[in-house]
Amino acid sequence: MNNHILETEKKRYMERTPKSQALQREAEKFLPGGSSRTTAYFDPYPHFIEKGMGKYIYDVDGNKYLDLMINATSLILGHSHPEIAIAVQEQSILGLAFSGPTESQISLAKILCDRIPSVDTIRFTNSGTEATMMAIRAAREFTGRRKIVKVEGGYHGAHEYVAVSVYSSEKDNSGEPKATPEYSKQPKTVTDDVIVIKYNDINATDKVLRQHCQDIACVIIEPVVSNFGYLPANLDFLTRLRRVTAETGIILIFDEVQSFRLSPGGAQELLGVIPDMTCLGKIIGGGLAIGAFGGREDIMNLFDPTQEVTPISHAGTFNANPVTMRAGEVVMNHLTQDVYDRMNSMGGVLRNKLGATFDELEIPIQVTGIGSLFGLHFTESNISNYDDVLSADLDKKAMFFLGMLNEGILMQTGIAGSLNVLSTDADVDRIVNTVRKVAQRSQ
Amino acid sequence: MNNHILETEKKRYMERTPKSQALQREAEKFLPGGSSRTTAYFDPYPHFIEKGMGKYIYDVDGNKYLDLMINATSLILGHSHPEIAIAVQEQSILGLAFSGPTESQISLAKILCDRIPSVDTIRFTNSGTEATMMAIRAAREFTGRRKIVKVEGGYHGAHEYVAVSVYSSEKDNSGEPKATPEYSKQPKTVTDDVIVIKYNDINATDKVLRQHCQDIACVIIEPVVSNFGYLPANLDFLTRLRRVTAETGIILIFDEVQSFRLSPGGAQELLGVIPDMTCLGKIIGGGLAIGAFGGREDIMNLFDPTQEVTPISHAGTFNANPVTMRAGEVVMNHLTQDVYDRMNSMGGVLRNKLGATFDELEIPIQVTGIGSLFGLHFTESNISNYDDVLSADLDKKAMFFLGMLNEGILMQTGIAGSLNVLSTDADVDRIVNTVRKVAQRSQ
Repeated sequence: MNNHILETEKKRYMERTPKSQALQREAEKFLPGGSSRTTAYFDPYPHFIEKGMGKYIYDVDGNKYLDLMINATSLILGHSHPEIAIAVQEQSILGLAFSGPTESQISLAKILCDRIPSVDTIRFTNSGTEATMMAIRAAREFTGRRKIVKVEGGYHGAHEYVAVSVYSSEKDNSGEPKATPEYSKQPKTVTDDVIVIKYNDINATDKVLRQHCQDIACVIIEPVVSNFGYLPANLDFLTRLRRVTAETGIILIFDEVQSFRLSPGGAQELLGVIPDMTCLGKIIGGGLAIGAFGGREDIMNLFDPTQEVTPISHAGTFNANPVTMRAGEVVMNHLTQDVYDRMNSMGGVLRNKLGATFDELEIPIQVTGIGSLFGLHFTESNISNYDDVLSADLDKKAMFFLGMLNEGILMQTGIAGSLNVLSTDADVDRIVNTVRKVAQRSQ
Repeated sequence: MNNHILETEKKRYMERTPKSQALQREAEKFLPGGSSRTTAYFDPYPHFIEKGMGKYIYDVDGNKYLDLMINATSLILGHSHPEIAIAVQEQSILGLAFSGPTESQISLAKILCDRIPSVDTIRFTNSGTEATMMAIRAAREFTGRRKIVKVEGGYHGAHEYVAVSVYSSEKDNSGEPKATPEYSKQPKTVTDDVIVIKYNDINATDKVLRQHCQDIACVIIEPVVSNFGYLPANLDFLTRLRRVTAETGIILIFDEVQSFRLSPGGAQELLGVIPDMTCLGKIIGGGLAIGAFGGREDIMNLFDPTQEVTPISHAGTFNANPVTMRAGEVVMNHLTQDVYDRMNSMGGVLRNKLGATFDELEIPIQVTGIGSLFGLHFTESNISNYDDVLSADLDKKAMFFLGMLNEGILMQTGIAGSLNVLSTDADVDRIVNTVRKVAQRSQ
């Protein structure tokens, strides 16, 4: 029956998107599967976007969507914000990128250093992938240790040492997560250097960290795991993780590429747990490609080029380019405490209403999230780690994603999403009513 | 004496750049060493850029420079090209980045696939680093082999397997290049998986490739090595490299991040040697952060998300974002065969005149380069590989870079550079005359 409903949603989607289907066929001639981004593809084919205005996007077939995906949480001011457009336009006349530094990189760096508790100094990259890569490298160089620890099911970008146990949940003989390659021919030497932990399982984590601490350079973790429907860590887990890493000289890296949108100082400020290093991306570039990593001054000094020998060289043609710096500064200046409070409280209302709606419909669901972020899981079990996420009905997710799309609301394919500064109470009600409608016809 | 001249150039530079010096002090509070990009730093401190217009940049102290660095060869149309500015401005109103694909990625992908002999299909990334990383991953997955081969002194971005023997030239007992970590605590398992070859040494290369072919996934190489002053490979080396890789099932990856600016189809077209895969960056994004990798359809299909299982997942929030795609398309549409011919022939004249000037001054120098690219080496020996590059007088390079800067011409710190579509015969003469002047006072 589920299959039939999924096919019905697909058919409806295809009827509404003939131009996207034609573009997909054309795209397949030049890009493998027509795609340049795995997460932007969904079955039967993605809709091609014409434009974005504020909280809405429009596809090439003229369909309008309330956008809860907003490019994977990054467009926190909504699409084509006029002040960002002006900054970008001004800089396009002054030059998009230079061989040397500009004042704009100081401005954005200052804002981020001032706001984020763990960040003494910072460096910019072109993506979150590059940010986590350089943070891990710094941890290795600083500690002289080799292994990295990550959460099963956690995503931290595309480079080798984090492309482990992202979408797999294999266990070893003792039932603990097993470092599993993300592509079949990934070198075993990579997985051998990665220890995978179960989210929120502090006893096992504490044990493995103490046991292998002589070899462990860092723990990299999202304090709010994006792939788990924006599930914040249990505070006890995070607090004890901070304690054991401090005691064992392991560098604690928070991947706040997404969770930085939760408060001026990110999730670390909200949850009161301060890592040694922090990785950023998404919102801080105003919609342009960006990443950043920062942290303790003694660690970040590994990149200081004013020394006789710079321990770690970090080049990058587009690092800290001024158009991205200026667009990012516009975003940061908009994000006052009031703005966060409003978005976060609206997110709380949304999650409550979603929970109440499914209760009323007697559909077992778990609503996860924090602040302006939310996720849905079709399961009766509480969500605490990746196994719990996988225990949910994943077919239902696909159906629900397409169902929402057919009703004019774009979520992430994993049926998660985020609000933005333009979101209103009426949007929240529309989301809840649409969820009700789609849920009812999915039964 | 050299030291004295270097100090004089430094002093002159500092007198001209007090505002840059002040900004550097400010930047050091928030960025390690004030820098977010190793290659953008030079001693005593980099000049901070105010704006770029056409072939000139202006620093915050009002100094104007003929820009031969143009952000590491990337700004081939010069700074703030009006048509790029218009494309960027239009897209800033339509939205800089979306959750889904846009028609613009098809357009740019089509142009690149049509022009580059080796590229059947292509995918976009946010940097050259990400491009070479994904190309190497594809080669590993396709061949089921683990090791990668790179040139001693070759730079291919910041990820682990290419951050080997970039700035070191250590040799093993037999005098062959030894895979050497680029930071002291780099895991040995990384260097163990890298075989380093000497550029242009086809006999040694042929031997090592045949000997280890069961383990070698790919050779990644710039057909024109940027760090060697844009030294094109000997044709015999490249042809036989192509032959041995084809015979042994090793994937040949050309890093054309810089050399793609040499012809519509890149250096591979110019030199007539076609690899299996090609990595791009720099010019193809119109000044915005970009990278791309493409190649044989059977290899690129590893990324095809329309399959039941996609062998390699490749996400990236800003992959193929429309503002970058549109800016890149403007560049590509400007680059007709006539434009390449003109730039390349002007580059030839520049290299000839530089050689003649140093001959006349009786200063031993090697001029390297091809097309619009050039590099200078203060040595009597012919430049053929990294050892030759290192045999040149490197102190003289630093002095020369600052000397040229003090005369209003910005080169790369390695005293290499590139022309662009706005370069004129008068610029060439100015460069040559300035080189003469700086060379004379350096003696």
